[in-house]
Parts: sequence; structure tokens; C-alpha cells
Amino acid sequence: MPVQFPKHLKPIEPQGTALLQQERNNATFNSNDLTQFIYGDDYLKSKNRILQILQADPILGDKSHRYYNGRDVRFKKSLAAANRLVELTRIHEWNDQEFGIAEFLFDEPSPFRLHRSMFMPTLANQGTEAQKKLYLEPAIRHEIIGCYAQTELGHGSNVRGLETTATYQPETQTFVFNSPTLTSSKWWIGGLGVAANHAIVMARLISQDKDHGPHPFVVQIRNLENHEPLEGVIVGDIGPKFGFNTVDNGFILFKDFHVPHIGFLARYSSIDKATGEYKTPPNSKLAYGTMVFVRANIVLESRVVLARAATIAIRYSAVRSQGSNTSDPKKITAPDGSMKTVETPVLDYTMQQYRLFPIIAQAYACHFTGQEMHRMYYENQAKMERGDYSYLADLHASSSGLKSLTTTLAVNAIEDCRRACGGHGFSLFSGLGQFYQDYLPKVTWEGDNYLLTQQTSRYLLKTLRSIRLGKISQKNSTFSSSYISEYLSNPQAKCPFNSVQDLNNPEALVSAFKFRAAFLIDKAVHAIDVDQISWNDMLVDIYRISRAHCQLLMVSNFVQAVFNNKKPGNLGPVLQRVAILFCLSTLDQEAADFLTSGYLAPEQAMMVKQHLIQIIKTIRPDVVALVDAFDFPDYLLNSALGENNGDVYEKMVAMTEKEPMNQFKVADGYQEFIRPLIHKGKDNWKLDKNGIARL
Amino acid sequence: MPVQFPKHLKPIEPQGTALLQQERNNATFNSNDLTQFIYGDDYLKSKNRILQILQADPILGDKSHRYYNGRDVRFKKSLAAANRLVELTRIHEWNDQEFGIAEFLFDEPSPFRLHRSMFMPTLANQGTEAQKKLYLEPAIRHEIIGCYAQTELGHGSNVRGLETTATYQPETQTFVFNSPTLTSSKWWIGGLGVAANHAIVMARLISQDKDHGPHPFVVQIRNLENHEPLEGVIVGDIGPKFGFNTVDNGFILFKDFHVPHIGFLARYSSIDKATGEYKTPPNSKLAYGTMVFVRANIVLESRVVLARAATIAIRYSAVRSQGSNTSDPKKITAPDGSMKTVETPVLDYTMQQYRLFPIIAQAYACHFTGQEMHRMYYENQAKMERGDYSYLADLHASSSGLKSLTTTLAVNAIEDCRRACGGHGFSLFSGLGQFYQDYLPKVTWEGDNYLLTQQTSRYLLKTLRSIRLGKISQKNSTFSSSYISEYLSNPQAKCPFNSVQDLNNPEALVSAFKFRAAFLIDKAVHAIDVDQISWNDMLVDIYRISRAHCQLLMVSNFVQAVFNNKKPGNLGPVLQRVAILFCLSTLDQEAADFLTSGYLAPEQAMMVKQHLIQIIKTIRPDVVALVDAFDFPDYLLNSALGENNGDVYEKMVAMTEKEPMNQFKVADGYQEFIRPLIHKGKDNWKLDKNGIARL
Repeated sequence: MPVQFPKHLKPIEPQGTALLQQERNNATFNSNDLTQFIYGDDYLKSKNRILQILQADPILGDKSHRYYNGRDVRFKKSLAAANRLVELTRIHEWNDQEFGIAEFLFDEPSPFRLHRSMFMPTLANQGTEAQKKLYLEPAIRHEIIGCYAQTELGHGSNVRGLETTATYQPETQTFVFNSPTLTSSKWWIGGLGVAANHAIVMARLISQDKDHGPHPFVVQIRNLENHEPLEGVIVGDIGPKFGFNTVDNGFILFKDFHVPHIGFLARYSSIDKATGEYKTPPNSKLAYGTMVFVRANIVLESRVVLARAATIAIRYSAVRSQGSNTSDPKKITAPDGSMKTVETPVLDYTMQQYRLFPIIAQAYACHFTGQEMHRMYYENQAKMERGDYSYLADLHASSSGLKSLTTTLAVNAIEDCRRACGGHGFSLFSGLGQFYQDYLPKVTWEGDNYLLTQQTSRYLLKTLRSIRLGKISQKNSTFSSSYISEYLSNPQAKCPFNSVQDLNNPEALVSAFKFRAAFLIDKAVHAIDVDQISWNDMLVDIYRISRAHCQLLMVSNFVQAVFNNKKPGNLGPVLQRVAILFCLSTLDQEAADFLTSGYLAPEQAMMVKQHLIQIIKTIRPDVVALVDAFDFPDYLLNSALGENNGDVYEKMVAMTEKEPMNQFKVADGYQEFIRPLIHKGKDNWKLDKNGIARL
Repeated sequence: MPVQFPKHLKPIEPQGTALLQQERNNATFNSNDLTQFIYGDDYLKSKNRILQILQADPILGDKSHRYYNGRDVRFKKSLAAANRLVELTRIHEWNDQEFGIAEFLFDEPSPFRLHRSMFMPTLANQGTEAQKKLYLEPAIRHEIIGCYAQTELGHGSNVRGLETTATYQPETQTFVFNSPTLTSSKWWIGGLGVAANHAIVMARLISQDKDHGPHPFVVQIRNLENHEPLEGVIVGDIGPKFGFNTVDNGFILFKDFHVPHIGFLARYSSIDKATGEYKTPPNSKLAYGTMVFVRANIVLESRVVLARAATIAIRYSAVRSQGSNTSDPKKITAPDGSMKTVETPVLDYTMQQYRLFPIIAQAYACHFTGQEMHRMYYENQAKMERGDYSYLADLHASSSGLKSLTTTLAVNAIEDCRRACGGHGFSLFSGLGQFYQDYLPKVTWEGDNYLLTQQTSRYLLKTLRSIRLGKISQKNSTFSSSYISEYLSNPQAKCPFNSVQDLNNPEALVSAFKFRAAFLIDKAVHAIDVDQISWNDMLVDIYRISRAHCQLLMVSNFVQAVFNNKKPGNLGPVLQRVAILFCLSTLDQEAADFLTSGYLAPEQAMMVKQHLIQIIKTIRPDVVALVDAFDFPDYLLNSALGENNGDVYEKMVAMTEKEPMNQFKVADGYQEFIRPLIHKGKDNWKLDKNGIARL
């Protein structure tokens, strides 16, 4: 007999719904206006249409199983969902954007994920017309399913270290694939463990006894008739992970495995079929452009991750009451009309505000920076088509650091929000645990967040050196070179903050971030060029430089976007307050850099700390509306703590009733492992007929 | 047919075992000496004896299932283990310390955990002799199993907010238990969901129409004969959590549930059986002493958590090679005798050192502070027995902040170490994922890490005020009052660091931490007493003060322990280097405070940053030995990345072979969800007899 909670019991007053309603009434702006402003009408329409389809779907509509099951059950359901998404895409003729929305709302990593995100794009970009016909066309119809096999058990970010070999044999006109060591096993390959029958494999191309380094091949790995691994291939799943367990990350090893000549992805380089002669690829910078686009999307995704975590924590903090804020106790009207002191919503505690509100500000900061990256991507593409590559290096460097910074912010935010939800944050019903686990890999893939910063900083150091050498003119100056030049013209500058008013001055804040970034760059160039400190010993500084530069970009983009032109409705003032909050909380968090540079004086740092608390207070009435504006449906959140109407405790209880262990009066394991202990004491018992000890 | 990796393949050279051996050869000291120094002989002997028993045990010896199963399977195995541990305790007559060692080595939260850690101690401390006979004696024999039910669905840290009522009825001589609201459901109670048949329940005692606030009761909740919940009780499991899923955290609600008079734990207060008259408890400060002991143990546990995470990450970083450190490429001797350049172990990268080495230093810092807390606990207990309570407030305040600081360090360290393991850190085989998930609640329970800091800081602010009022003399001065007095006598002091030598001066470093803590306390007192800022608006500063004070304690205890007396073998110099590393990395991380106080000048902060990198280098040869010294057996670590002999890749592969999805050539789900998609393309196929598309 399943456990049931008494239906007549309500949570203690005041109720969550009323508390959230009150928060919404207090906002200084209409959250729908902000929703429109963030996403635009077209996106919202698509989203709502697709949401209806998913919620009504017999397979995708119900997420209630997600928190209870082990990997076996969850993976099988994930396969079912992947299959169903293919079907729905066909039925509704979803384009890539629409499919992306469905994927976002369904919110579970899929075994077919890499098929769409890597297998097909690689074929499209690096395949010849013949290869596209042979592989891409059936792939689009999901008649073959592919994955992208690059990483090896012993080799992650360093592609040049890959060991798998593909040796061309002119006699058979095939490439012979081999895995020479255990560490050469392809590893972590999403979709490979169970689902894929094809793979793009990065292998060292060897021909005419020469090693040409890693190249991409398309390879059939499983029998199309029955899905069994082909002879010469050992393939399987790499086992359980911290998250992402609905995906079959897999491994593969090759032993004298023959791949036909056409498997070599030959758009840029080629192997002569008869002789095995290798032709080198023409150098193309266009690929870097695409990377900027991918990273802009990652920044926009970080925005959503930050906002989603904040949505849950903010709404729950408005409902969760605890203790009493003695300086301002909360009162409600009791049924008899008198005022009654109740516990204080934790959202009223300054510490909670300090932990959560900057995360909202980060979400908005990522929004504006992601948009600016898209704009610059298109501008740069247009330039490159005209043969002008002058933007590319700057854009690529910044986008590397921004991927690192924003995904680090996002991943930390999920965990910070989870902890800010107190005990219940630890329940999977919070909707934050699996969210964290599934998002985590983002800090490692698409460029490790530490390694990436080297690209950013290397470019910035080079820029400073070029300025010193007089190689930068007005014509080829960039945002980066301008702020570095400015610093070099006055490296002894001091921060002009005299009063709290100055701390609300966006331009002054941006200037502080400029000075700090340029200072770090200058010191690093000095350390390397003058003090001869090795690159390795500078890695910590290198990381800091990238972070400082990217925080400057975010601060600058945010300020630019909200102070310089009119916003619809009442959005202007609140977005400006959020921008100032972002600047000040970032400045406070990085205060050591600003102080060490000599730009910020100790008293000014103290002023920032104090004013930050005040700015946080000015955001307080708007925080629920600010997260509401991101418009995440309950279907996405799947969170007892964070759903829209604030029925936190009712939802906790409803989810608890579904716990499999609660379906029986006495749980499995009692007979075997508890009863024998208890019944040892039987001789001492005096039990009544209800099994109660008589005392 | 299960997947099998080819047995003849080895990882790429150099092999992990050789790399670790080389690291061990390079150490400047003998790690066994340090092991002895940390634990002492008695503990090590017990540990090794118990380890043998556990490893050989048919039920507890095998942990290999832990990473593959869902909660259902894991919970049942956890019950089996709990049962088996009771049996082994009986067989081997383990005392509490020995049981603790077994629990530590087995390393899985148990459904019987709270029975031992809370149910029995509460009976022992708060029960009368009659209650002990009735409940504690069978509890010791596990003939009844209990839990500790305080937290409610709507009420965490604020005990005064609890809603469950126990109303005394003189007619029936029973307490009638009721759950008036949904939020009054007892929640999060470890062991309650499935295992317990008794509970200590904290409920508002109501008698003679008066609410006396929360008091503890012992209550039978399940039928001893068949384990069914008693009438008037709704009980079950609260469902899946982020971690700790081998425990049945439960909920319970009461409806007119009668508990006999003897259920009221009456050692300190009582209810007259006939009239229901309530007698108030005499105030006892002795309980605070116990809390110090519990917290000293938490600090010593933090040490082990930090060291365990570091052991895995450090050993794996010695084995994992990636890219090439261009300034100092790694070479090995090839079979033909020539020198061959190989990839660089990531442990040689400064960034990796910067991420990991401070964690080792934190582990040692927690060791010395935990030991000092134990010493002070005993000193204080002796004083209190003589009626001298002068130590208590200081000790209690510091222990609150230290619990907060060290568990926060520990939990962050696990995740930092996991991320520092790159991609493989995300595999559960790393041994860091579940470890993090199961340790996490520590930051919330035994006092929430944010709330606790208010106790510490409140005491420190009070101390400063007392000093100003001349209420502190030499006689009642403490460590805290001394450093605050010192600061007040010279609040304009400047840091005397002139050169790198000064940065190796432990006393100078301790002085810096003293100044910074006292500065923050002084500023907060000024803000509250003069500027009239509310306590709520000061919460961020309050948190910082506690952290600053406790970092000072750790720095001071560490320096005291390793600079002031001779250590066995060569341990002195290396421990001193580690102490300096702890001071400098903490100083660097908190540099903003030191700079803002005006004590540290910008150039000095820069010097700290640079010297920190140099100190890190001096630790480099010893890091593997420093983690080896903690002597964690592979049985505990259960980690492919971190086990003692460095066979990282062989272990990853062996654990992968056991993945349930790899036991079949074609995994479950293919027939239903993949085959229909693929076979849609059948008409276009030209397959050979092996299912390979003919191109």
C-alpha cells in the first residue's frame, strides 16, 4: 500500500503562492515586457508551440521518472525519447532552431546528440560531394547514426598526441585502422557506446611510411542489419559518470580494421587512391569564424543556465521562511484581522541576497555579451568574405576566454544556488542536482576552461608588444588595443571614485576594469620579456589576464546595451541597476587585482563593499520578476522548489509519494537484514496486539 | 557476450607505476615516518587489522557494484552492509573507535548511522536511568533501531519554529502527538524511511495549556513484530537525493498518536505524571563542551577529506601526461638507449600545482588545528569541572567558525580535485563523484556553514567591546582578546615585508592574519555601534570576520606545531614548507582583505603572488609522498585514477568491462528504438554478408 500524505493538511501560513504573488506585485516593471525584450516574438511563439507539443506527448510529456531510476532505466527511456524526437521532427518539419528549442525544453542529454551536433556538421564541412551523398543524406534521415571519435583514453586536449593509426594500403585501397596501445582507445565518445553505427574517427594518417598526423575519417562500426560490432572493432560504453548518464559515452579500439578509400574526409586534403600520395590542405581561417559562432551560443546558453538556477533559488527563497529578522520582522494579517509575526522569507536576509542576486546579474550580462558576439560574428564573416581578416584574431581570442569565463560562472551558479536552497537543495526534487551534473562537462569540452585562457592571453600580450613596437595604428586598432594603449599612456592613473555617486557611474566602472586588465597584461609582458619567467611559471597570471579581459568585455557590453538607448516600458532603470550590480559585484569579488594594481585605494575598496550591499537592496523588489522574465516553463524546471506558483511543499510531498520505496508498507530488505536483528530481542518483548512494546 | 579489452595492450610509455615510483624516489623524506607522526602507532595497528577483516569479508569486501547501480539496488546492499557491520562488531568486540575506523574504511553512509550517532547518545545524555534501561540497552544490541527526528519539511535550522506538538493528557498519562500542517512533517530524518522502529522526536511540549517549546521524546513508530507503521503514524522515505542515497532519509507525520509518559526524555526537565506540571531544566553549559569535541572531530574529518581528494588528483596528475612543457620537455630512455621526448605529466604544469598543492597544505592545516582543538577540549573540560568556565565562550565560538571553514574547504577541494582530473574526473571511476555527493550535506548539517559564523563573530565583536570597556585583564585574556588588543594599540600598523625572506617568516605571516581579522572586527563594531547598520545588513561582513578569525587560528596552530619543536626524521623542513604554503596561499586568496585594511601594500601583495609560485615549486618533489603519508588504502579510495600503484588506465578499462551495458553485444533498447530508424533505409542498402555497406 503506497504511502499517502493527508490531503487536508496545508503548509504553515503564509502560503507560497501568496508570497510569490506579493513579490510579483512589488516589481517596478512588467516581466512580460522583459521576456519579449530578451527573446523576441518569433522565438517565444516557436517555444510555446513546441512546449505544447512536448507536454502533450505520450513519451516526452512525462518527466516524473527522472529522479528515481538508475542508469539502466533512464538510458532506455532516453533512447525512446531520442527516437521520438526524430519522429516529431519529421511530423512537424522542425528546422534546426526548432529542434534546438525542443531539445532545450526536454532537457536531457540524448544518445543522438553528437549525431546532430558533430557527425553531420563534420560531414557537411569536411566531406566531398560524393561523401555527403553516401553518408550525410542517410544521416539526415537517421538511417545511419554517427558520433565523433577524437578523444582517447590517454589523450584529451592535445590532439597531436593521439595514437590511433590509419595506414593507407594502395594494394587494397583501404586504410588499416589500429589501436597500438591501451591509451589509444577512443574514449568518452557520446553515442558510441550503444547507439551509433558510424563514427567520425580522428586517426594519424600514415601513407608512404609517413605520419601526417591526425585526420578525420568516416567509418562504419556496426552491422547495419543487426547492430553487432564489426570484426576488428571492440566497442562499448565507458560506464557510469557523475552526470550525463542518459548518454552512452563509449570507447572503441581497432585491430587491422579496413576502411575504404572514400572514408577519408577529403574536402581539404587527399590521398591518391593508387599511390597513396598525400596532398596537404590549403590553410583556411574560415573555421575560426565558426568557432566564434559556436562560442557565442555557449555564452547565450550560460545565460540560460544562470537564470534557470537563479529562478529556482529565488522563488524558493521567497517562499521559504526561517527565523526572524529582528530588525524588520515580517507580519501577516491573521484570520481575525490582527497582525501576526511570522518567520522571515530567507530572501530578506542580506547574506542570501548577496549569494543570489549577483547570479541574476551574471545571467543578464551573458545575455548582452552573447548578443554582441553574434553581432560581431556576422560583421566579421562579412569582412572575411571581402578578404579582410583584421577582426578575426581579436574576436577569436575574446571568444575563447568568454567561453571559459561564462561556463565557469554558470557551473558555479548552479551549485551556489543549490546550496542556497538549504537542506531541500540536496533533494533531487530541487531540480538543481541533475542539472549541475549534466551541465558540468561544459567546463572541460569545447576547449578546457583553463587551457582556453592561454589563447586569449597570448593574443593580448602580443597586442601590447605590437603597440610598444608602434605596429598598431588607428586603422588596425581594436577594443583590446585601445584600452591597452590608454593604460600605457598613463600607467600611474588612479581611480577617481570619491563618493557613492561615482560608483553608479557606468563609464567610471568600465574604466576601472580596463585599467586592471591592461595592468595585468603589462606586468605579464614584463615578467616574460624582461625577467625571463617561463610561460609555464606564468600560467596562473595568464589565467587571470583572460578572466580580467573577459570581465571587462562583459561589463562593457552590458553598460553599452542598457545605458545608451531607450528600452521598452519601464525596463531601462531596472536593467541599469542590474548592470551596476554586475559591475560592483565583479569588482568586489576581484578587488585584490584592482588594489594590487594601485588603481583602487583601500578606502575605495571599502566603499565598493558597502555600496554593493545598497545596490543589492535596490534590486530586491524586482528579483522575482527578473527571473520570471526568463520565462522557464515548469516543464523545463522540473523542480518542487522553483515552479511558477510557489506550491513548494505540496510539490515536495507529491514527488515523495512517487518514491519507489514508498509503494509498500514495509520496504524491501526488511525481512533479510532488519528483522533478524530485532527478533533477537523477542524474549524480552511484551508486545500488545499492535506490536507496541508494553512499558 | 561481454566486452573484453585486448589483454596484450599496454598504455603508452612511460607507465604509471614507473612514474609514481620516480615521484616517490624524489621525496626528501620518508612517507612512513610522516604516517606514524600523523596517526600514531595504535591507530595504525587498529586500522590495518580492521582493513584485513573488511577486505576479506564476503559482504563488505567488494565495493565493485557501487558505481553501476540505481538507488534500489544500492540501498538494499547498504542494509546488508549495515547488518553485517553489527555482526562484525559483535564478533570482534569493536569499541567505538574501532567501529569508527570500520565505518570510515567501508565509506558508505548507512541506514543505521543515526542510530549510533544520535539516537543512542541522546538517550545516554538526556534519558533517566529507567529510560536507559528501557531503550538504550536494547538499542546497543540493535534490538531496536532508532533515529533522530528534529528537522521538519518547513523548518531547518530554526528549532524554535518547529510545529509538531506533543500535548500531555493526564487522564491517559500519554503525550498526544500531532502534525498540524504539511510543513510540520518531520523531514530528512536519516534511518527513518525504512530502517527505524523508534525515533527521538523533537516536539513542542504542551501541558496545562502552555506551550513549553521543543523537547525530545523517544517514540516507537513501527510494529516490532512485522515492522508496519503504527496507527496514527504516516512514515516513509523522502526520495532521491544528490548523494547519500544509501541512507533512507525519511519523513513522519502524527495524527492523535499516543506516547506513554515515560517517552519524555526527562533527565533535565520533567512533567508530573498526575497533573502535567512542567519543571524547567537547570541551565547547563556542559553541552557546549561536547559540541567542541564533535567539531574537533569534524575538523579532523575535513583533514581526511582534503587529503583523500588530493591523493587521487595528485597521483593521477603524476601519471596523466599531456602536451609538452616547452621550457622543460620531459624525456625518457627508449628501449634502444636513446632519449625520447614524451608528453609532460600534468603535475609539472604550474597551473595544476597551483590548483592542487594548496589543498594538501589545507589537509595538514586541518590536522594540526583538529589536534589543538582536542587538546583545548580536554583542558576546558578539566577547567569546567573545577567550575571555571572562562575558556568556554572562546572555544565554542572558534569551534563554530572552524566547523564552517574546514568543511567548506573540504567540500570545495573534492570538486576542485575532480575538475583537476580533466575528463576522467567526470567518470564515477575517479572515486571523486560519489565522494563529493555523500560529503556535501556536511556544509548544511551540524550547523549551517553560514549561520554558524554568526556565533563566532558575535563573540568576537563582544570581545572587542569588552576590551574597549576595560573589562579584559591579563587574567581573563584569551588568544582572541590578545590579538584584538594588539591591533587596537596600533591600528595603523603596516606589514613589514621587504623581501622574499620575510615571506618565509612564520611569525610575520601570523601577524598579518591577526591584523586582518582584528581590522574586520573593528570595522564591524564601528558600523553597528556608530553607523547603526543593522545586523542583517552586516551579515556578509559577519561571515568574513569568522572566516578571517578561523584562518588565523589555522595559520597560527600550523606554525606553532611545526616551527617550535623538532620533528622525527626529515619531517621538519617539509612540514615547514607546507605551513608557509598554507599561509601564503590563504593570504593570496584573501588578498583583498589584507589590502583593504591598509596593512598590506600593493607591491607586497605582488610579492606574495610571485613567491607563492616559488614555494609551490619547493613542494613539487614531495607532493606524492605528502599524500602517500595519509596512507589511504585502495579499498577506501575505490578510484581508478588514484590507487597506489598508478595503473590508471588498466583500472579504467577493468571497471569499464563491468558496466552492465557491456555485458551484451547489442544493448537493450536497440530493437525498439534504433532498429526501426535504421531499417527504414533498407531499400537503399547494399550490404555484404557482414552487414557492411558496400560503397
